[in-house]
Amino acid sequence: MRAALALRRAPVTVTLIDKRNHHLFQPLLYQVATAGLSPANIAYPIRSIVRRNRNTHVLLDDVTAVDLVGRTVTTSQGPIPYDFLILAAGADNSYFGHDQWSKFALGLKSLENALDIRRRILLAFELAEREENEAARGVLLTFVVIGGGPTGVELAGAIAEIARQVMVTDFRSIDPRESRIVLVEAGPRILPTFDEKLAAKAAAALNRRGVEIFTSKPVKDIEHELVQLQDSAIAARTIIWAAGVAPSKLARSLDAELDRAGRVKVGSDLTIPGHREAFVIGDLASCVDVEGRTMPGLAPVALQQGTAVAGNIRRAIEGRPYRQFRYVDKGMLATVGRAYAIAQFDGIKLSGFIAWIVWTFVHIAYLIGFRNRLIVMIEWAWAYFTSQRAARIVTGDIESRPPSI
Amino acid sequence: MRAALALRRAPVTVTLIDKRNHHLFQPLLYQVATAGLSPANIAYPIRSIVRRNRNTHVLLDDVTAVDLVGRTVTTSQGPIPYDFLILAAGADNSYFGHDQWSKFALGLKSLENALDIRRRILLAFELAEREENEAARGVLLTFVVIGGGPTGVELAGAIAEIARQVMVTDFRSIDPRESRIVLVEAGPRILPTFDEKLAAKAAAALNRRGVEIFTSKPVKDIEHELVQLQDSAIAARTIIWAAGVAPSKLARSLDAELDRAGRVKVGSDLTIPGHREAFVIGDLASCVDVEGRTMPGLAPVALQQGTAVAGNIRRAIEGRPYRQFRYVDKGMLATVGRAYAIAQFDGIKLSGFIAWIVWTFVHIAYLIGFRNRLIVMIEWAWAYFTSQRAARIVTGDIESRPPSI
Repeated sequence: MRAALALRRAPVTVTLIDKRNHHLFQPLLYQVATAGLSPANIAYPIRSIVRRNRNTHVLLDDVTAVDLVGRTVTTSQGPIPYDFLILAAGADNSYFGHDQWSKFALGLKSLENALDIRRRILLAFELAEREENEAARGVLLTFVVIGGGPTGVELAGAIAEIARQVMVTDFRSIDPRESRIVLVEAGPRILPTFDEKLAAKAAAALNRRGVEIFTSKPVKDIEHELVQLQDSAIAARTIIWAAGVAPSKLARSLDAELDRAGRVKVGSDLTIPGHREAFVIGDLASCVDVEGRTMPGLAPVALQQGTAVAGNIRRAIEGRPYRQFRYVDKGMLATVGRAYAIAQFDGIKLSGFIAWIVWTFVHIAYLIGFRNRLIVMIEWAWAYFTSQRAARIVTGDIESRPPSI
Repeated sequence: MRAALALRRAPVTVTLIDKRNHHLFQPLLYQVATAGLSPANIAYPIRSIVRRNRNTHVLLDDVTAVDLVGRTVTTSQGPIPYDFLILAAGADNSYFGHDQWSKFALGLKSLENALDIRRRILLAFELAEREENEAARGVLLTFVVIGGGPTGVELAGAIAEIARQVMVTDFRSIDPRESRIVLVEAGPRILPTFDEKLAAKAAAALNRRGVEIFTSKPVKDIEHELVQLQDSAIAARTIIWAAGVAPSKLARSLDAELDRAGRVKVGSDLTIPGHREAFVIGDLASCVDVEGRTMPGLAPVALQQGTAVAGNIRRAIEGRPYRQFRYVDKGMLATVGRAYAIAQFDGIKLSGFIAWIVWTFVHIAYLIGFRNRLIVMIEWAWAYFTSQRAARIVTGDIESRPPSI
């Protein structure tokens, strides 16, 4: 999308193909999953974003394969030829070869995922309220988040907030504060990509909010309402998977070299070696920039790559050589819950309320559309002062949601 | 809910059973169906509404039967005994004995219904954009709304607005203004419960917005993408059913007299004859008030009945006789689209922009929660000045939504 926007005045015709009609602001998806925001607050119609680009066609379709030699992409409506290709299909949930776990541990990559998680969290309290058996109630009120990266930390913090603040006075038979929220991480510490001291502060903040953190606990198996660790097991109705993603399956349809994680290896001009007209960017690309840094799977990387590719396409048309990609590091942020975040950029390290204010403004700034920004600001201010959540609704027929769901 | 709130300080224990976790503000449901508002804007958690009523338990459950003699209601968790019963289960879509039509013509009673309709409307334009056959494109861009009551009028007006204003610059292959929006009514005029002149003004306003109105055209049959009338047929991918509702099936589980429409006949004290402890209110009740007026299926009737029943229960506890129900007529409102509505109360009749302002403030006033009111006001102001819609998102896997959906 960033590349399409940047090509607005270039002498090209852009076809933007996506299997969704909306652009999703992924960093706030966990807020939809935890009833803080509505889907429409973080999703924006792709057509509206590029409406002023008269050279851009938007197609709602699923690309199933790419033929690099024949220069066509395959869609449900047939093949579409191209002169230049920009592949930015991103990543999906990955259960590291244990796809059967996906039935028991919900991932968080799409709006549908987020609504499933929201439904499961809210229903857990509802079912506990009417459950008379104490052990069964304990299972209903246990929430396990697997994966101690930013998404896992944000989810665990938000669930703790729901249990300890949002729901407190709403039930008569249960006390939501008795909920158990467990964050499970295979490695020795949470937030491994962050500075160690900052990550330790985040862990302490999570503990204060009532989240139990299990580190160095790789998951051995996941069954229905059960997480098996090396030497113990946790029974929980709600199990959320935030431990890993894998590149889109589209990577494997290419006749191109992939790295160990399955991402497409590109040169520092972002093209596939041997295919100067085929660019791969974002989470789908395995890229080392011109300074020799391996690119992490972060939104700022993808955005900058989009702009860089548009520049290279303009240069190709003008007969000039490609420019190598140079990443401008914007730092990293993670939030632990209400009024607590950590931030690091350029040697500056922040934690607590100030970092949370930074987090808040950065995320509002990156939302698309002034109305979305205004409404998210109101929702957050409201949540901050009242401890209420905006989107505490369960949809779906009651028939389809008894115990097994 | 209104009755439960009114019983806050009464010496009773209230169990509020609903198969949803949220209270839905039905009059604005059509705005969710037409991408103007998000579900959370018009749905509020029932638990939060009654959180201050310490005597009220909320149960998320489905009531499948009521035993008036044994004084129990049957839920999925077993029977619940009662001393007093308030039945307010409302109405569902009714296809007048043609249940097979429900597959082809979407009703609008729940949030799920509204999201299905939203998805279908938005996808129609997307599929038309990639359709090369002109006839097929025509079917994709035809929208039929069956039923000329307030819901049908509001839906048809909002769809016309989407086609003619919201989407105008977003497509490259189609011109959304070529869409055909047809409102089909079996009777001789739309809005039959309104004053005839006002209804005629609403019809003219709909015509100006590009809605074709077919009156005296009863529907003979509905098939896949086809509406059969007496002497013609309309091919349309999107068919919406706003022609009728029927009382909840719960009415038939009662050993009580029903009226022709299937509603439970109650006395003017709102009890089932022979069962002084069993009240029926809202759309489920067939009620003639103390002044001899037959109660219409409107929200103000249900709200006033809720308060009246709470009063009668207090009186029963105090050993005093029941009071008869007297309806205070609040008038009627219907909106045709952006900046046009009709209103009638007590001999006052309004149409156009002023009626729309009245409509706007009345609907905002009845929303629950200050935050919802504020956000809906912002969404409407935004929509008014920019002709954009807040919730233009399609969710659901692409696999499940090709041509047949």
